[in-house]
Amino acid sequence: MRNRQWILKRRPKGRISQSDFERRDVALPQTPLKPGEILFRNRMLLCAPTMRNWMSGQTNSLFRTIEIGAPVAAPAAGEVIASADERFPVGARVTTLGSWRDYEIIDAAAQSVGTIPDRVSFVDAMGKFGLNPQTAYFGLLRVGRPAAGETVVVSGAAGSTGSTAAQIARIVRCRVIGIAGGKEKCQWLLDTCKLDAVIDYKHENVEARLRELCPNGIDVFYDNVGGDILQAAVNNMARRGRIVLCGQIASYNDDDLPEGPRNMMRVIYGAVRMEGFLVSDFAQEVDQAIADLKQWYESGEMVHRVDLRHSFDNLPDAYADIFTGANNGTLLVEIGDSQ
Amino acid sequence: MRNRQWILKRRPKGRISQSDFERRDVALPQTPLKPGEILFRNRMLLCAPTMRNWMSGQTNSLFRTIEIGAPVAAPAAGEVIASADERFPVGARVTTLGSWRDYEIIDAAAQSVGTIPDRVSFVDAMGKFGLNPQTAYFGLLRVGRPAAGETVVVSGAAGSTGSTAAQIARIVRCRVIGIAGGKEKCQWLLDTCKLDAVIDYKHENVEARLRELCPNGIDVFYDNVGGDILQAAVNNMARRGRIVLCGQIASYNDDDLPEGPRNMMRVIYGAVRMEGFLVSDFAQEVDQAIADLKQWYESGEMVHRVDLRHSFDNLPDAYADIFTGANNGTLLVEIGDSQ
Repeated sequence: MRNRQWILKRRPKGRISQSDFERRDVALPQTPLKPGEILFRNRMLLCAPTMRNWMSGQTNSLFRTIEIGAPVAAPAAGEVIASADERFPVGARVTTLGSWRDYEIIDAAAQSVGTIPDRVSFVDAMGKFGLNPQTAYFGLLRVGRPAAGETVVVSGAAGSTGSTAAQIARIVRCRVIGIAGGKEKCQWLLDTCKLDAVIDYKHENVEARLRELCPNGIDVFYDNVGGDILQAAVNNMARRGRIVLCGQIASYNDDDLPEGPRNMMRVIYGAVRMEGFLVSDFAQEVDQAIADLKQWYESGEMVHRVDLRHSFDNLPDAYADIFTGANNGTLLVEIGDSQ
Repeated sequence: MRNRQWILKRRPKGRISQSDFERRDVALPQTPLKPGEILFRNRMLLCAPTMRNWMSGQTNSLFRTIEIGAPVAAPAAGEVIASADERFPVGARVTTLGSWRDYEIIDAAAQSVGTIPDRVSFVDAMGKFGLNPQTAYFGLLRVGRPAAGETVVVSGAAGSTGSTAAQIARIVRCRVIGIAGGKEKCQWLLDTCKLDAVIDYKHENVEARLRELCPNGIDVFYDNVGGDILQAAVNNMARRGRIVLCGQIASYNDDDLPEGPRNMMRVIYGAVRMEGFLVSDFAQEVDQAIADLKQWYESGEMVHRVDLRHSFDNLPDAYADIFTGANNGTLLVEIGDSQ
């Protein structure tokens, strides 16, 4: 049995390309497991924008770094093949931080591993109930803290995290405006996600439209994008508005550090709060988040769109799609195909 | 009796100069007072950095704007000369938003006016207990919310607001590092304000020194300055750190909108909170703030330095000093001199 791998060959410059990675297949890990370790088989991999930051190797202790020559780290669902941790017996289906390879040894004592409940598929574990909807849940409700009747704007609104944040905002009775790229995505947000309004950043002036649509200012801005869109929102925040800093996908492929929003005086005069967060800070509340999400899906109040790809060989190309917006919803790659 | 005035002659470009203002003396206001109005005599004027923003006339509904040809608005202490508001009888000593002129009619029904307690001088009302220490109190304690043992960094630390924020941080048992310009100010912060460490931004590399002095990161950064100093702090924030956005004096004289901090991803990965605020949002808690400040002054735990100037004619020159750091502490101008 071989262990397929995609390793990081070099630090990407600008937009990532297949040549930043290299297929290097190896033998299965043979080391006997130490206590607390499991042999994990990656089956379903999440293409998460933040992995681009892990690849860049910036000197910053807060960032995870993928070393050159190492398999690309990625949130994963899969099976336990061998185990020295009684919480995760052979055959258990789990989620963890995996990587672009078939098999790896995970130290379950040191790294977060979660059991997938029976009757929940790998796709649902990584999609509907995965990191992106959890991120949206905690970011919107715990960081943004919108009150009923407030105006919430979400960037990257047709994405996996954005569409969840936008729909939760609607469910808690806010007025919701989504920013997305292209007619199909905007129409989906209106028709299926039932947002109050959308802005197509590819065809409209975002700042002018925000000014029109939010004459009393934006109460909560949930930002997945950064750059000019964050600036446009800063310029239109309401007094005591909150900016939830979730992602900065507009700039992940920049080689230079991107500019932050100008005009911090407006943040001061507006008494605006801008706050970053990590979903891992809310580990205590994950069960509640999953229960709420489940109820919203089952009642039909919320939809979740998954863009499921197949084949290990396609991983780099599939991953590149999230930076051009070519995906529709949570981008998952199922890699069990040719093993 | 004449009513001396300094009016705003034009919108300043870059550093303000005397030629941005014009002396234009007029007669005393003669209109009979409407109910709720008082005739107010400005006696002591605060030189507040934020007034520079009011002069710039930026289109932004959150900013106060001083119109061309109008007297320069400024926080003031003075006396009630005539009154149609029984809360403020003739002879009452009050603080309010006044302006660079001797006499003006204030609508006390529409604008905040506060009575100065007996035995509190104009200097103390505008200095020790004035807007700057109140701002520091609410900004540090209510926005920054430092816990005992945390590391607090204050920029503009030798200023009126900064020195108060830094000393309160010490009083609540934080480790406190001040950033200020020049040896005299830094020595005063160490010797008199009893900070744990200082950084002289005129002679030291702020970012390198922050890295040395805060190996575990900055828990609370109280920022009066913005620009490069804010960037240096962003790069050194601890996980879950808080940035209190109080002022951006480094950029008030810029004609272009200054850059905000780059690298918002660090704010995200650090789960950092950046928050602007206005002291007026804490009006309900002013009595508590004054009581706490009073106790700290009386116990000797806190000092407050006032840089008292005289003469109405000097107002523009005195005001310009706050942007070069030529003042030492709260810059007040007493204008009752030649009347």
